[in-house]
Amino acid sequence: MNSIRKVGFVIKPHAPGVGAILRDLVAFLEGRGVVCVLEDAAAVKLGARRGLAREKLPARTDLVVVLGGDGTLLSVAGPAAAAGVPVMGVNLGRLGFLTEVPVAEARRTLEELLTGETGIIGGRRFLQARRGRAVHHCLNDVVINKGALARMIQIAIRIDGREVAVLKGDGLVVSTPTGSTAYSLAAGGPIVQPHVPALVLSPICPHTLTFRPMVVAADSVIGLRLQTDGEEVYMSLDGQRGAELEEGDEVTVRTSPLELRLVSSPARGYFDVVKEKLGWAE
Amino acid sequence: MNSIRKVGFVIKPHAPGVGAILRDLVAFLEGRGVVCVLEDAAAVKLGARRGLAREKLPARTDLVVVLGGDGTLLSVAGPAAAAGVPVMGVNLGRLGFLTEVPVAEARRTLEELLTGETGIIGGRRFLQARRGRAVHHCLNDVVINKGALARMIQIAIRIDGREVAVLKGDGLVVSTPTGSTAYSLAAGGPIVQPHVPALVLSPICPHTLTFRPMVVAADSVIGLRLQTDGEEVYMSLDGQRGAELEEGDEVTVRTSPLELRLVSSPARGYFDVVKEKLGWAE
Amino acid sequence: MNSIRKVGFVIKPHAPGVGAILRDLVAFLEGRGVVCVLEDAAAVKLGARRGLAREKLPARTDLVVVLGGDGTLLSVAGPAAAAGVPVMGVNLGRLGFLTEVPVAEARRTLEELLTGETGIIGGRRFLQARRGRAVHHCLNDVVINKGALARMIQIAIRIDGREVAVLKGDGLVVSTPTGSTAYSLAAGGPIVQPHVPALVLSPICPHTLTFRPMVVAADSVIGLRLQTDGEEVYMSLDGQRGAELEEGDEVTVRTSPLELRLVSSPARGYFDVVKEKLGWAE
Amino acid sequence: MNSIRKVGFVIKPHAPGVGAILRDLVAFLEGRGVVCVLEDAAAVKLGARRGLAREKLPARTDLVVVLGGDGTLLSVAGPAAAAGVPVMGVNLGRLGFLTEVPVAEARRTLEELLTGETGIIGGRRFLQARRGRAVHHCLNDVVINKGALARMIQIAIRIDGREVAVLKGDGLVVSTPTGSTAYSLAAGGPIVQPHVPALVLSPICPHTLTFRPMVVAADSVIGLRLQTDGEEVYMSLDGQRGAELEEGDEVTVRTSPLELRLVSSPARGYFDVVKEKLGWAE
Repeated sequence: MNSIRKVGFVIKPHAPGVGAILRDLVAFLEGRGVVCVLEDAAAVKLGARRGLAREKLPARTDLVVVLGGDGTLLSVAGPAAAAGVPVMGVNLGRLGFLTEVPVAEARRTLEELLTGETGIIGGRRFLQARRGRAVHHCLNDVVINKGALARMIQIAIRIDGREVAVLKGDGLVVSTPTGSTAYSLAAGGPIVQPHVPALVLSPICPHTLTFRPMVVAADSVIGLRLQTDGEEVYMSLDGQRGAELEEGDEVTVRTSPLELRLVSSPARGYFDVVKEKLGWAE
Repeated sequence: MNSIRKVGFVIKPHAPGVGAILRDLVAFLEGRGVVCVLEDAAAVKLGARRGLAREKLPARTDLVVVLGGDGTLLSVAGPAAAAGVPVMGVNLGRLGFLTEVPVAEARRTLEELLTGETGIIGGRRFLQARRGRAVHHCLNDVVINKGALARMIQIAIRIDGREVAVLKGDGLVVSTPTGSTAYSLAAGGPIVQPHVPALVLSPICPHTLTFRPMVVAADSVIGLRLQTDGEEVYMSLDGQRGAELEEGDEVTVRTSPLELRLVSSPARGYFDVVKEKLGWAE
Repeated sequence: MNSIRKVGFVIKPHAPGVGAILRDLVAFLEGRGVVCVLEDAAAVKLGARRGLAREKLPARTDLVVVLGGDGTLLSVAGPAAAAGVPVMGVNLGRLGFLTEVPVAEARRTLEELLTGETGIIGGRRFLQARRGRAVHHCLNDVVINKGALARMIQIAIRIDGREVAVLKGDGLVVSTPTGSTAYSLAAGGPIVQPHVPALVLSPICPHTLTFRPMVVAADSVIGLRLQTDGEEVYMSLDGQRGAELEEGDEVTVRTSPLELRLVSSPARGYFDVVKEKLGWAE
Repeated sequence: MNSIRKVGFVIKPHAPGVGAILRDLVAFLEGRGVVCVLEDAAAVKLGARRGLAREKLPARTDLVVVLGGDGTLLSVAGPAAAAGVPVMGVNLGRLGFLTEVPVAEARRTLEELLTGETGIIGGRRFLQARRGRAVHHCLNDVVINKGALARMIQIAIRIDGREVAVLKGDGLVVSTPTGSTAYSLAAGGPIVQPHVPALVLSPICPHTLTFRPMVVAADSVIGLRLQTDGEEVYMSLDGQRGAELEEGDEVTVRTSPLELRLVSSPARGYFDVVKEKLGWAE
């Protein structure tokens, strides 16, 4: 990693205490000669009229600091990965699967990054979802889901060109290992270590009870074709963006060439986070 | 049961062969002096211009015969229960959990009903869902579910006035024993014998992994309060009718005084149907 | 309930602090003119040479107090139910599903029982398991399970004389509603309110993935026939007593005429206990 | 692969029709100048007094043909992998996950192997389980399981030297992708494509309900330490061999350097087998 001279800040504006923490970290960095770049919401918190648009911020920095939860981090993950800029998530409330640096460790972790300690940055693969000409990238998951009043839908699943199954149910989650602890877990999927080269397919309320979560190789090409007519069906990406699907629509999901450079807490391993989030310690 | 002098027919119009079966059963019944009453779609099949509206049909008959699947039967279950008229479901394709009389046994089963064999009629309790002044009745389930693009929702659950849990996830199914093999099963709920005096609460993709399906007494009063703001959330009844919910809305679910008198196949017990539908025999 | 003049004590001898609590409660009761009767282990704690055998204690008292966990309470549940004597479980460590009175509430709860407050005693149905001439009673569950090195076993399940399924897998749990939060829950079964008149059948690691937990009426007669030859298979009762089964052995399980009169914490409802034990509150 | 001049046969002796199929394939191979080598049971079927011991057979052949089910194949997988000799499983009854060549395709598949068509041979990684000085290899899984009458056990799980969790429950399955469709699936684990470089940890009836199946990198070192005293606990390997464990015993599981060269049906992909075995096609 080149040396860090510019740090961008992205925040969850209504999180309690976010203003004070932002001010503190900006002061800390500026005291070390680092330039701080703020997205709109962060700039307003510090009394400015405006800052940068969130999606444009990563390309103009050497590191993005997110003050908020996993949702806030997801919203800037794509531009950060595209720009090759690492992201450090500081959780303001509860520990997140992505925002794993607690406020109390934020200064120390920044310190390590400034002094070139890059061992704490891990790569997190993205998914690419192609539908017609549109290509989307997401860090956690692509979900095909029926509307709340729709009936059971059918999705024909092909893996590497070969038909695997026709899923009947509420829908399907295709997730990266990173996304395995998000929606996929609630749907019944396994917990997958971030660096396992794999994708997870977890059915949502499958009608066929033998249809179970599947783990396939990361270089698989997954073709999903909607076979249901006249019901509301949506594709959503990282639970943040969505599009309606119609009968016959095909979505092709595969591992993306993009990779998020995510800063881990130096004090925590992956399973420490899992253990704390899922209450295994108790 | 009083003797059967009028039989009503409700059909799934596009089911293959439904016209011929309808004609056959009408001829059979008329040959025995029974008057046949047809809903619109059935009347059209037999060449008439129109018949009765489906929901008005039960009150004018002594027995309703449904030619179709479980969905068709569900659509007439409420009016039939309100009128106290038994329903016989003849499945045209695959065996249904409600439409368990196969075509080949339809004449024989009608014969038994005409000659007063009432042992094959079982009572199936309904749910009542009250929201504000509106009261709905349903045979299978009341489902509160988020829209496809909505995020996790929160539902506060009270049982008999006492708060049990705040569920975070995609939603909740409250089902009768009859409905336990429908959506509740896909959500992870148990199979409950129809005559067990109980209700089932099955969470849909719960965020809290320890939140498991619950079976409560049939006389429980279940209060569900939506605590989520700004997301699309719907209540649906038997997967057929729906209404949007807003933050603070409260739905009260309890066993209804209504009961459907459902005709069972004389040749099958409840678990024979379950075994065949779920492929246990294999 | 007749007035309480004799209280028996059953303890988990190695639980930290059990001696002091025993001494305190005995003093409290004797101060009110109540005679205290001690099982062997409890007598030794108070300096005596010996007391009564645990299983003989209930018949000589008007109330049994258990100081320990659910396992300790289960060990005396049968004799207490046979004698018609209520049981109050005081949990010394973590809250139990059966031992739900905390130490801090023990005196107050005893006080209420002495003054005739019987509303806090609920009936908990037992199971009866018959194998040949031997009849066993248990409060939680009858489990048929393969030995650790045995292969998959087959159990033919009959309900009310009708074959329901042949289960292939590690085994089967038949539980009362009371037992639904014990082993059955770990095997994937639902949580069932104690007063629902039902039994739960939960398969253990079923080979047939569509084989799901079932809830049947409390008056069902469940016939289980082992169809596996040459493998170690055991029946266990409340996880405390066991017997080996052989091919062709048949176990008949039904609700027992016995009922345990269990003292609830006046401050807690059933779901308060569930919520605390399963961490729903978090 | 060098050319095939010697083929060994391993059989399930009591499988219906196994003698005729063995005779047929031996005749077919001998007609092409291939020498056939028989294990004891196979030799007896063809009228000889004795053959080779099963475990010694692979080292003396260029290909092992198994006539039986997955259990039969597992029993020779270790010696075959150690000798680097490919194995072709012909299923005599139902399709197996490992024995995926049907009898009707056996000659054709042998033909392809004799003519050098090696594309149909895939590598299947083994597990290595080390306990003290003893090292075991297995293709499907290492299972630590309590005895049928034992109570809940505790296993401390370390991954790459870091403690992940203390599992309380009946036990744990560590499986290869190949083993993911065996016991791990019954315990609730995901289906993992054979070539995904991963291991699966599936808890058996976990007491902690948030403890879910985990997928970790294939190069992980998994340390399992039994923390339970005085209960019967066993380790079993591929469901075929076992050993008792005592408190404090530590088992270290990792991917083995061994790899089984397994012949696939040329007509079937991995998910075709899964689809057929799990009844997804229905």
